[in-house]
Amino acid sequence: MNFQEENAMDVAGKIEQSLCAILPIGAVEAHGPHLPLGTDNLLAERLARLLANRTNSFVLPTLPYGQVWSLQNFPGSINVSNEALIRMLYDIGESLVRQGFRIFAMLNGHLGNAPALKDAARLLYRDYPELKVYYFFYPGSKETIAKVRDTPSSHASYFHACELETSYMLYLAEEHVDMSRAVNDPPTIDLEADCTPTPWETFTSTAVLGDATLATKEKGQQIIESTLQTMTAIIANAKQRILLEREP
Amino acid sequence: MNFQEENAMDVAGKIEQSLCAILPIGAVEAHGPHLPLGTDNLLAERLARLLANRTNSFVLPTLPYGQVWSLQNFPGSINVSNEALIRMLYDIGESLVRQGFRIFAMLNGHLGNAPALKDAARLLYRDYPELKVYYFFYPGSKETIAKVRDTPSSHASYFHACELETSYMLYLAEEHVDMSRAVNDPPTIDLEADCTPTPWETFTSTAVLGDATLATKEKGQQIIESTLQTMTAIIANAKQRILLEREP
Amino acid sequence: MNFQEENAMDVAGKIEQSLCAILPIGAVEAHGPHLPLGTDNLLAERLARLLANRTNSFVLPTLPYGQVWSLQNFPGSINVSNEALIRMLYDIGESLVRQGFRIFAMLNGHLGNAPALKDAARLLYRDYPELKVYYFFYPGSKETIAKVRDTPSSHASYFHACELETSYMLYLAEEHVDMSRAVNDPPTIDLEADCTPTPWETFTSTAVLGDATLATKEKGQQIIESTLQTMTAIIANAKQRILLEREP
Amino acid sequence: MNFQEENAMDVAGKIEQSLCAILPIGAVEAHGPHLPLGTDNLLAERLARLLANRTNSFVLPTLPYGQVWSLQNFPGSINVSNEALIRMLYDIGESLVRQGFRIFAMLNGHLGNAPALKDAARLLYRDYPELKVYYFFYPGSKETIAKVRDTPSSHASYFHACELETSYMLYLAEEHVDMSRAVNDPPTIDLEADCTPTPWETFTSTAVLGDATLATKEKGQQIIESTLQTMTAIIANAKQRILLEREP
Amino acid sequence: MNFQEENAMDVAGKIEQSLCAILPIGAVEAHGPHLPLGTDNLLAERLARLLANRTNSFVLPTLPYGQVWSLQNFPGSINVSNEALIRMLYDIGESLVRQGFRIFAMLNGHLGNAPALKDAARLLYRDYPELKVYYFFYPGSKETIAKVRDTPSSHASYFHACELETSYMLYLAEEHVDMSRAVNDPPTIDLEADCTPTPWETFTSTAVLGDATLATKEKGQQIIESTLQTMTAIIANAKQRILLEREP
Amino acid sequence: MNFQEENAMDVAGKIEQSLCAILPIGAVEAHGPHLPLGTDNLLAERLARLLANRTNSFVLPTLPYGQVWSLQNFPGSINVSNEALIRMLYDIGESLVRQGFRIFAMLNGHLGNAPALKDAARLLYRDYPELKVYYFFYPGSKETIAKVRDTPSSHASYFHACELETSYMLYLAEEHVDMSRAVNDPPTIDLEADCTPTPWETFTSTAVLGDATLATKEKGQQIIESTLQTMTAIIANAKQRILLEREP
Repeated sequence: MNFQEENAMDVAGKIEQSLCAILPIGAVEAHGPHLPLGTDNLLAERLARLLANRTNSFVLPTLPYGQVWSLQNFPGSINVSNEALIRMLYDIGESLVRQGFRIFAMLNGHLGNAPALKDAARLLYRDYPELKVYYFFYPGSKETIAKVRDTPSSHASYFHACELETSYMLYLAEEHVDMSRAVNDPPTIDLEADCTPTPWETFTSTAVLGDATLATKEKGQQIIESTLQTMTAIIANAKQRILLEREP
Repeated sequence: MNFQEENAMDVAGKIEQSLCAILPIGAVEAHGPHLPLGTDNLLAERLARLLANRTNSFVLPTLPYGQVWSLQNFPGSINVSNEALIRMLYDIGESLVRQGFRIFAMLNGHLGNAPALKDAARLLYRDYPELKVYYFFYPGSKETIAKVRDTPSSHASYFHACELETSYMLYLAEEHVDMSRAVNDPPTIDLEADCTPTPWETFTSTAVLGDATLATKEKGQQIIESTLQTMTAIIANAKQRILLEREP
Repeated sequence: MNFQEENAMDVAGKIEQSLCAILPIGAVEAHGPHLPLGTDNLLAERLARLLANRTNSFVLPTLPYGQVWSLQNFPGSINVSNEALIRMLYDIGESLVRQGFRIFAMLNGHLGNAPALKDAARLLYRDYPELKVYYFFYPGSKETIAKVRDTPSSHASYFHACELETSYMLYLAEEHVDMSRAVNDPPTIDLEADCTPTPWETFTSTAVLGDATLATKEKGQQIIESTLQTMTAIIANAKQRILLEREP
Repeated sequence: MNFQEENAMDVAGKIEQSLCAILPIGAVEAHGPHLPLGTDNLLAERLARLLANRTNSFVLPTLPYGQVWSLQNFPGSINVSNEALIRMLYDIGESLVRQGFRIFAMLNGHLGNAPALKDAARLLYRDYPELKVYYFFYPGSKETIAKVRDTPSSHASYFHACELETSYMLYLAEEHVDMSRAVNDPPTIDLEADCTPTPWETFTSTAVLGDATLATKEKGQQIIESTLQTMTAIIANAKQRILLEREP
Repeated sequence: MNFQEENAMDVAGKIEQSLCAILPIGAVEAHGPHLPLGTDNLLAERLARLLANRTNSFVLPTLPYGQVWSLQNFPGSINVSNEALIRMLYDIGESLVRQGFRIFAMLNGHLGNAPALKDAARLLYRDYPELKVYYFFYPGSKETIAKVRDTPSSHASYFHACELETSYMLYLAEEHVDMSRAVNDPPTIDLEADCTPTPWETFTSTAVLGDATLATKEKGQQIIESTLQTMTAIIANAKQRILLEREP
Repeated sequence: MNFQEENAMDVAGKIEQSLCAILPIGAVEAHGPHLPLGTDNLLAERLARLLANRTNSFVLPTLPYGQVWSLQNFPGSINVSNEALIRMLYDIGESLVRQGFRIFAMLNGHLGNAPALKDAARLLYRDYPELKVYYFFYPGSKETIAKVRDTPSSHASYFHACELETSYMLYLAEEHVDMSRAVNDPPTIDLEADCTPTPWETFTSTAVLGDATLATKEKGQQIIESTLQTMTAIIANAKQRILLEREP
């Protein structure tokens, strides 16, 4: 169900059946020596496909640019502003409503996008209450993560190019991982870094927030499967509610 | 030279060598029964790869959403505003300057994006004169088109899902074309349509502006090669100028 | 039917009769040694008066500032941004709806204004579908131009202070033309100029894109009359449609 | 010194001599049965010409649209927002700096424009301190007004289509006044009207705030001459300061 | 009736009874050696409390930042833009409507806020006609001022840290006044200052526009009571109109 | 060190000594039956005073309006947009730089403000790198919280009117707490609530996310003191760094 491979003559009926469009959104951003700049795009895209298969949804083309303020000074990072993201996501949502979609799931592979996604979702919620908008960033994976990880997290809310994210890549996009270059480089992140604008070059030179060498495909599989189940259930429930409302 | 497949450790030196980033930008839009919604994305992306190969440039991930006001009421179209596009393109350009690029070539597969691209380019020109910004929409193809086309154009400035665009697809993305569904449906476009907001459903039901059945891979090849030569020369010249400036 | 000469007590009834307001919009911009800076304003204004006479429309006061990015570095040019134009045109359109007008014809004398006019028209179309908005830039003149011009055009889409525009001035505002200073100065405009921000001083020192010495009042008359007929027909048809809708 | 009648070849030197550009700015707005909708434009334009003559300044083309919120529901009024005005005035000021002007005098014929003019002037002051920006609304006329008026003002800060403004018109644009339709219609304006948005239709049906029948050309002449002297002195002083700064 | 001291369980019913919310809005700005930076906040806040008592209204928390362009270069001044104020006031008004308020009285202690308040009020008037919005800056005090003041005003429209404002402070916030440091420092304000951006340091070093030594609590009392009566009457009338509309 | 009680004559020298301005920012928002609408303002303000005392900083007047999207439908809530907050905070920061401050600490009492504060801080960081900007929301309190709380948190990232926040109020603003009305009302918050716009009325009727009856002054004291120590250390270090930079 790759949306852009459909043609205009057939697509209207399929939208009516599917009701749900999934937008992968990631970023182009430094991910250490062993992962590509497009890691967040790859993860979002592959996860979106799996989710689409399980929920009979359409996958929209990936929006591959995100807000990477913290890493913008690292080689290869491309940063776009919250304003640009919010406006574009709002416009996409507006078109989806017009096209007959009732669920718009933004599948986010990059935490830095979260505030923009939330704002865009709220604006759509205000103007198009008939559209259910989701912003997913590995929901429901917390317990599995706690179980499978071997090293503690370098930071309370974000992870990056580390044991976790590298495991996700090994499961979802193994051909883009070069484990021979994986490093163990957990930074010490000062409490102050959470209270003032802090580019990451002040505490890491590799952008690897942890021990990437401990990543395995199996860890990735377990975590990704747990979040996939969560997202699948949420979308399935949403569809059911919509269908119930439609019944006479 | 797929930019997002690079990693942060190696990319800085390669940027220094390459100097040029190519951004494919297209749209999700109705393209008749024989072409997919993502036609403009596919064309921009494949053309970008060819151009990158010939000019030693990087291809950035495709920006797959464009301004499709005219066709927004057709099934499958997703429209984003000029404001969203301008802002995102400006932000991308700003990051490219910071990353050391000196040429930013927007390879556009959708005419409706042209005003936004021009505006974004002018803003970058004002703020970052050291960055050469291009907006390419099949430049240098005019004479070849005049030579190879069998049917007249339906409109003085735009073509869509017709003999021409279908030929481009046959050459660049044949696996996405279903010639068995190609139609001949040239509309009559009133002069008034150029002077007042006119959604295309007022003059076409297929969105095919011409005779798609006459499309051939050979026509596509000739036209695409002519524009590729033009773009290749423009970028090669720009690089040479930059390198000359750098000489002591 | 000069709108600003009307008084508030009488104007409401006249609007009800006329239905159509014509806004001349031009620019202050270098036009060579033989034409004044206000050439585009003069052309828009005089053409508007002729069109108003033939269609029983009101002429609004001229909006004399336009987007002249390309020539902004020439002496005398005054450039305003697309944003300023779009906002002002939108506001004017909104007031016209409130005043009872049903047709808003922007008579444009300067090609650089075209994208702003189109955007403003689309915004009004979205918010005030009951208002028919036109953006006219010499529509319907193409064939006559091909017939009467003696020299080829310097560029595929724009003409400036040349055989054509000077002829228009000789027909519409002869007292502002000094043919003794007219020059023949066709530039060579590189294909690259259409693909990257290119101020005109890079290819012309006079801003005359052609041979102004070949301009004649007769050429001007033929072309202007052809576009006047086209615009008159468009407005007459629009009025008729509105009146038909109103019939019981 | 009508700016738009100049040509690009000669104008640069003249700007260097003159240094000062005067922009008439008015509005299209109901002015009772005896004055035209364009009263504020006519007054601004004619006053600008007189001021230009006395100060060797250029008169720019009139910006004929203003903020007429209070009267927007009266027949014939065209209202534009502060945002549109501010943006356009800022852009014009920016171009004037680039063209070599050092004084930008906005000659305002409509009080409703005052906040936008002040804001635009402050923005230019911040970004272009070398440009002296004035916003003139009959400065220095207070004492003469107190002397010549026969009826008290209807409001502490504004006057409209009344003894005063009609007198200005009789002096500056007599051919547009129809004194046979002048009325005496002073409204009672509640104190509350200054503390809450109050469209003028709530207290007047004619938009004449006073006794227009008492207007005379002589009153107009005295007041206009007093403000002209004030403005002439201000601009003359400003020029002198600029020239002194330039001396070695 | 301090709004923020209420709790959510009880407040809905009280809003239904009161209908009116008063927002004190001031500024942080230099006020000479004898008055504190927060003078305008203190005046707005205390006046708001008195008005609330007399009209059974709620006092909202003070918005303590205002537009102080003219004094922004004086020690201690904090300036916020019109845009920030307008947006925040609009948002507050929108919430008040949702909460069931029908009257939103902005009690302004700083003249520089006036344009922003007026603009915000007009936007709310357009979008929420059911909400009556007031912007109060000492309304109805003119005659009393003329009676009690001993020295003439330094400027036709503004007063600052002078006989008047110091008197207000002596009446409303005496504990914040240090009369031993009060000065008599009337500036000469050129007519030009009203026609061009003019920071106040060009004509005063103390920011005291007059003779603060003549201030007395009694003068303050008389003026403040007169404006309180005016505001009380306006709000009482507004409430009465709303209640009448509600009657069956 | 209440900034708005200072006067302009003395304040410059004190700023030079202090270097640091603390801005309390809260919200007006439903906080259950036992806490006032202004809870977040009270907490921010009192905490700011304590922090100012320990760090020789100035306390600016409280910005009492915040982004309360989630609770905007509860009685008494007043919601302002991120845009309004960001713009106002940016403007305040800009003035602080001009006034000679080198540290701008936003002491936030309301989690919903966090994204706006972060964005404003990043904009100031870009434009005024000489200003150190902090956004504090109880930093360094995590361990103490884990130790003192008797009930688990209702949500991974937010707490509201519960055991914790009520304890803070008992310590900092006891006179505004009515423990007799405190309730135990922990909601069940679905995982979906973190992935889609979810007004809180969907899972709580009291807005108390936990057991407020377990709140004690002692718990409040321990947590507040731990965060105070953290913030004090951060500011003290920042001052030291600034002073070191200044040394010759």
